[in-house]
Amino acid sequence: MKKLDDYMPFILQPQNIARIEDNVILIGDRRAYPLSKEFVSCSSVEDVAVAIESMVTQGGGPVRAAMIAMLFLAGKTDRGEVSRTPDTFINAKKRLQITRPTNTSMARLLEHLVTIICQDIEAGNALAPEVNKFIEDFQSEYERNSFSMAETGAGLIDDGDGVLTMCFAETSFILSIALAMEQGKSIKVYSPETRPYLQGARLTAPCLMEIGADVTLITDSMCAHVMSEGKVQKYMTAVDIVTRDGWAANKIGTFQNAVCANYHGIPYFPFAIDPDMSRRGREGIIIEERNPEEIKMIKGILTTRADMKAFYPAFDIVPPHLISGIITPKGLVSPYGLERVFG
Amino acid sequence: MKKLDDYMPFILQPQNIARIEDNVILIGDRRAYPLSKEFVSCSSVEDVAVAIESMVTQGGGPVRAAMIAMLFLAGKTDRGEVSRTPDTFINAKKRLQITRPTNTSMARLLEHLVTIICQDIEAGNALAPEVNKFIEDFQSEYERNSFSMAETGAGLIDDGDGVLTMCFAETSFILSIALAMEQGKSIKVYSPETRPYLQGARLTAPCLMEIGADVTLITDSMCAHVMSEGKVQKYMTAVDIVTRDGWAANKIGTFQNAVCANYHGIPYFPFAIDPDMSRRGREGIIIEERNPEEIKMIKGILTTRADMKAFYPAFDIVPPHLISGIITPKGLVSPYGLERVFG
Repeated sequence: MKKLDDYMPFILQPQNIARIEDNVILIGDRRAYPLSKEFVSCSSVEDVAVAIESMVTQGGGPVRAAMIAMLFLAGKTDRGEVSRTPDTFINAKKRLQITRPTNTSMARLLEHLVTIICQDIEAGNALAPEVNKFIEDFQSEYERNSFSMAETGAGLIDDGDGVLTMCFAETSFILSIALAMEQGKSIKVYSPETRPYLQGARLTAPCLMEIGADVTLITDSMCAHVMSEGKVQKYMTAVDIVTRDGWAANKIGTFQNAVCANYHGIPYFPFAIDPDMSRRGREGIIIEERNPEEIKMIKGILTTRADMKAFYPAFDIVPPHLISGIITPKGLVSPYGLERVFG
Repeated sequence: MKKLDDYMPFILQPQNIARIEDNVILIGDRRAYPLSKEFVSCSSVEDVAVAIESMVTQGGGPVRAAMIAMLFLAGKTDRGEVSRTPDTFINAKKRLQITRPTNTSMARLLEHLVTIICQDIEAGNALAPEVNKFIEDFQSEYERNSFSMAETGAGLIDDGDGVLTMCFAETSFILSIALAMEQGKSIKVYSPETRPYLQGARLTAPCLMEIGADVTLITDSMCAHVMSEGKVQKYMTAVDIVTRDGWAANKIGTFQNAVCANYHGIPYFPFAIDPDMSRRGREGIIIEERNPEEIKMIKGILTTRADMKAFYPAFDIVPPHLISGIITPKGLVSPYGLERVFG
């Protein structure tokens, strides 16, 4: 059977996203990659929360980092180093949840995990083995879902296609490209650099190079031009959230590419591993605003006057009519059909 | 009478674009601004050509820099330091013209100037006074045209408008904002940073701050999002070229903003001081491709693997159906009506 690790580049291997080693939590530092492979060391849930807020890990990374933080806390509880009360975990959960207002995957998963932990506290069970099993089950399901989505993704890519992406679409997208290549398809991927954090330049393009894909780095301003030259046949991204009625939020820039793809007759296929069926429409999505100082700097270097006013919405929202189909673990679903499939 | 210099920020003052001083040509270094005000010193036409190619000056800057280079050469000719032949100027013209394949303004102006110089060589006139007069006449006409265009531009901006721009739309745009403010209109300008050269962050936003405008810096990926929030009512840019049949090329990213403006029902008004009536359609425009290494760096710092493949088209092309009206010295002209107005 195919294993995810056989396909994944360095930073997407679970152990390199987050792991416990020598009684500290190591989180793969996506800010340093690809120029170096570094880990940030965390000794508490607070440290992990700050690391997530500081973009040490991003995209799908915070889900695993938060679960590992809970495993760390469970271990401390079992060893009697922190008090064995529901509040210990409820407070940790709350702290981690607020690190990412737009993407609700981690928040929802922690609700589930903390409910189980509270039951185990009441039942008098050791906590770490239970949390560990939760993470292992999550990982197995994630792996199954990733292959299922990537098979759909690879199937949508035709021989000779140019594929535009945005930001870092992670496992399902990288795996889609890998499987399409395995099917003998010749593909070119265009990766916009994704300002201000440069996830495209730092993560997507190097990960695609690592798996041997033909990838070209462009700036975020070049997407429509590349489309107008006939170089793009498919547009594919991750999403941070998809609501019940098919509204999707993802890294800022995703929406304008979707508008331009629509203008050029290019289909847009976002990957969504777990649509948030509790939210509806544009109003159901909270757009995280980050520190505007980050807009005035690139890799710490000032690009304009220090007293310049700036604006930094970290995500934008794509309406369902610009989405051609959502790639989910249950196949390709119309943005208007999520309720039928996910209930 | 109103003078342009009373309104213009530092880098748009003609003397700070290019001037001759102590027998060298000083070109205002737009790469250093706004963090410092520096000049690059040139001792030959070749130096000026290299400075233009290296983006020391850009946008409308090369027009003046090239004329000053010709004035410099005329002075040397008059002093007998170079041979007084048409070839001296024809070769200089050719060298300067190839520095910018997309924007044809400078190329066309040099044709005109060198024709005059060749006549003066034949007539035995001193050359420098003639070139100087040509530059002064150009500057007077430029000033008249800028005020005329800015009055049109300011008239299109309503009280309370948000105005999106792209790259550095220079004199006519900055003056439009200044005149609209003088008319008591409250305006917010959104300036995308304009990767890879950051003309928005380095030039547009600081120039607008310098004249007291309310400007907000955003990344190039945020334009559609800002539109979707109702923050933008007008989209205005310079153009590097407009053809006879209303196709416009400008800094890469201009096209995708035009697509997104159209999607949101926001009119797009480019400024064109001299449409190129010798060119037609998309095929009449040559898109300059610059060194892809520049995509992998920001202010000299590598953002990705050094061996990454990248693509750097410096301009993109807006079709006439996405243009609501072209702001010209002869008023607001339909992209389909240039032939009627400019013959």
